[in-house]
Amino acid sequence: MSSPLRIALAGLGTVGTGVIQLIEENSALIARRAGRPIEIVAVTARDRSKNRGVDLSAYRWVDDMGELATASDIDVVVELVGGSDGPALTLARETLSNGRSFVTANKAMIAHHGAELAKLAESKNTALKFEAAVAGGIPVIQGLRDGAAANRIDRVYGILNGTCNFILSTMEKEGLDFTDVLSDAQAKGFAEADPSFDIDGIDAAHKLAILASLSFGSEIDFGGVEARGIRKILAADIAQAKALGYRIRLIGLAEIDGENGASEIFQRVQPCLVPLAHPLAHVTGATNAVVAEGNFSGRLLFQGAGAGDRPTASAVVADLVDIARKETGPAFSMPSSELEKLPRAASAHRVGKTYIRMIVADRVGVLAEITAAMRDAGLSIESLIQTETSDDGSALIAMVTHAGPEQAINDTLKTLAPSESLMGEPMVMHILGE
Amino acid sequence: MSSPLRIALAGLGTVGTGVIQLIEENSALIARRAGRPIEIVAVTARDRSKNRGVDLSAYRWVDDMGELATASDIDVVVELVGGSDGPALTLARETLSNGRSFVTANKAMIAHHGAELAKLAESKNTALKFEAAVAGGIPVIQGLRDGAAANRIDRVYGILNGTCNFILSTMEKEGLDFTDVLSDAQAKGFAEADPSFDIDGIDAAHKLAILASLSFGSEIDFGGVEARGIRKILAADIAQAKALGYRIRLIGLAEIDGENGASEIFQRVQPCLVPLAHPLAHVTGATNAVVAEGNFSGRLLFQGAGAGDRPTASAVVADLVDIARKETGPAFSMPSSELEKLPRAASAHRVGKTYIRMIVADRVGVLAEITAAMRDAGLSIESLIQTETSDDGSALIAMVTHAGPEQAINDTLKTLAPSESLMGEPMVMHILGE
Repeated sequence: MSSPLRIALAGLGTVGTGVIQLIEENSALIARRAGRPIEIVAVTARDRSKNRGVDLSAYRWVDDMGELATASDIDVVVELVGGSDGPALTLARETLSNGRSFVTANKAMIAHHGAELAKLAESKNTALKFEAAVAGGIPVIQGLRDGAAANRIDRVYGILNGTCNFILSTMEKEGLDFTDVLSDAQAKGFAEADPSFDIDGIDAAHKLAILASLSFGSEIDFGGVEARGIRKILAADIAQAKALGYRIRLIGLAEIDGENGASEIFQRVQPCLVPLAHPLAHVTGATNAVVAEGNFSGRLLFQGAGAGDRPTASAVVADLVDIARKETGPAFSMPSSELEKLPRAASAHRVGKTYIRMIVADRVGVLAEITAAMRDAGLSIESLIQTETSDDGSALIAMVTHAGPEQAINDTLKTLAPSESLMGEPMVMHILGE
Repeated sequence: MSSPLRIALAGLGTVGTGVIQLIEENSALIARRAGRPIEIVAVTARDRSKNRGVDLSAYRWVDDMGELATASDIDVVVELVGGSDGPALTLARETLSNGRSFVTANKAMIAHHGAELAKLAESKNTALKFEAAVAGGIPVIQGLRDGAAANRIDRVYGILNGTCNFILSTMEKEGLDFTDVLSDAQAKGFAEADPSFDIDGIDAAHKLAILASLSFGSEIDFGGVEARGIRKILAADIAQAKALGYRIRLIGLAEIDGENGASEIFQRVQPCLVPLAHPLAHVTGATNAVVAEGNFSGRLLFQGAGAGDRPTASAVVADLVDIARKETGPAFSMPSSELEKLPRAASAHRVGKTYIRMIVADRVGVLAEITAAMRDAGLSIESLIQTETSDDGSALIAMVTHAGPEQAINDTLKTLAPSESLMGEPMVMHILGE
């Protein structure tokens, strides 16, 4: 058996300690699979004295994270510090510049600086790997890079944020509104104290940008991801969706739009109505799932735990096994020079069914006003439900349109915006095609 | 860009022509991902004159398949001939002996001779790859070998035969009995003229043996797979299962039984009742799905098209991309010398809920006789339905037991075997745990 792969861990939060536990518990098995042992040499974190429930005495403690990048006895630095810039980015640049491999779970950093880091890794002929950055323990980076490698992929989408899926599943199960479930999730530790990265769709957008680049062979373009979160979803939306045969999920979707000859890239994170016949409708709790549509494979689905110390550690160590086996290629599946810079596609001409929910003053002529605006925009209605909402005399109107361009929705909402019948902003959710 | 990977195709059925179409259609993309082009050099099949809908004129036609193994201008032989022995096996041995790589979709050959071929490949330092042998276009071999590499996997299971899943889904949807759906599936080309490999579970057993070896790091043991098919399932079974909250699926399951200290391997293909909350209950039509339970990753699900020319071609070419990238290790994820030879676990002490259906003569005391036999075997009933079946005075009794050892089921059936109340053999199906 060859010499061990020597690694250093920067960051000893739950994922970092998970990596230590995994490497200790499965060491013999990993050595059999990787062809050589994986050995932790050094560790670093902000606070040395903190009790993390793992024994660190066998590993060299380093106070200055920067030392890891240049230490002569380290082959791979594993970064679990987080943050798109700052110390994590400095460590990545220094490690790769020094010709060492770099493994990270840091989706924000890869979404913002992945292109630069991938080029740096290539120029130094070393590995940059980030399986743990997308969908926790699900080996979807590998699935796209290797398993689906023979395919042209024109669409990749999925449930990329466990917190949102947990909140939506719980809202559905308990019939509660968003804010109630969020407080409960925070109390139980399923949601962060500041949950905006999760619930506003930013975290899912980071992951989507990474998946899109790998799927399409395009330069990563996080700035091109439109993101809307789940804050404004009511228990009533979930109930109406259910009555119509749908479940609401936060979906990140990236697609190549080749309609006008040239390839354009469309990327959006938003709550969608998912038909019950679609596998994503059955993904509940903190589970993640990614669908990639290949021109030969057809629809591939990868599903599993989207977060958590142990699943994320599983993804980190999968990258280490690849490095130990010397099975590492370019970070985004092809050399940076081969990645295309695709223009962004506009959403206005995208065609699909749409769910629109409005809270309206319950008075004569409201429905006539709304339906006239829709007619003028060329938008036709497939189904409509009007229900009373409360004692204040307002009513809830929920409808699903026939397939039409998003521009028609925009036009309708623009016409209705000044209307005094509308109480608050309408909720618009697209319906995921089967 | 490096020199092309030169391949030869043996077998030009639907999958073979699919591989040609894929390599032609996606050639530029494949070269970007693989770092070099993949080039078809030679082809062979039984009948040269047959019109296959693809233009073969650019490729050297070889009449004697054996030539491919030794031709100096071929790096990889792709075998799509089929058959566990015979010409396919000869070609595999000769190609690997000659130090060339070998890619196959031949599950029967790998199930029977995979251990021998893997050793041969290792001794010649060349690659043996068979992604297409399991679950069509789903990259599950790669998922287990690479993505889940850090995990101890103690259980792998799934829907491994598209024909059976298509038949079961259709029986459910249409309320028809097995034989009616089979004839229809045969007429439409979804089932073979001789469907026994599929519907008796042999095809799924081949795939299960391969998955088990990869998951557990154990020597492949096809002889140790118990296989039962779907021939005896009635429309009434599906209806009763549905009433009880289950769907019937043909499940291949392999598990490490570590109860008595030593690790034993259990492998079985059989129809099971799958709870609606389980993702496999929602896999319909010819789709396949595989679940692997890792000790860190938790439950990983891989789902997609289980057969068909294009998905299978996607898997074949994924292997070729790996070879082009020089990212190939031992066939079963670790060197043959590291694979453990595990003893087979007995089924009798396995514990679970079970569905039992009997057709009985509708006369006084039948239920008393059955329930007494169950009581004597220590088996308790969770739910029971008795319905009339037909005009002949027989009745159908369907029940689900509480969790108990399989031995108790065996004992009950043994007691009841001589009974004149039973019309035909009882149907026993285990319930898949959530």
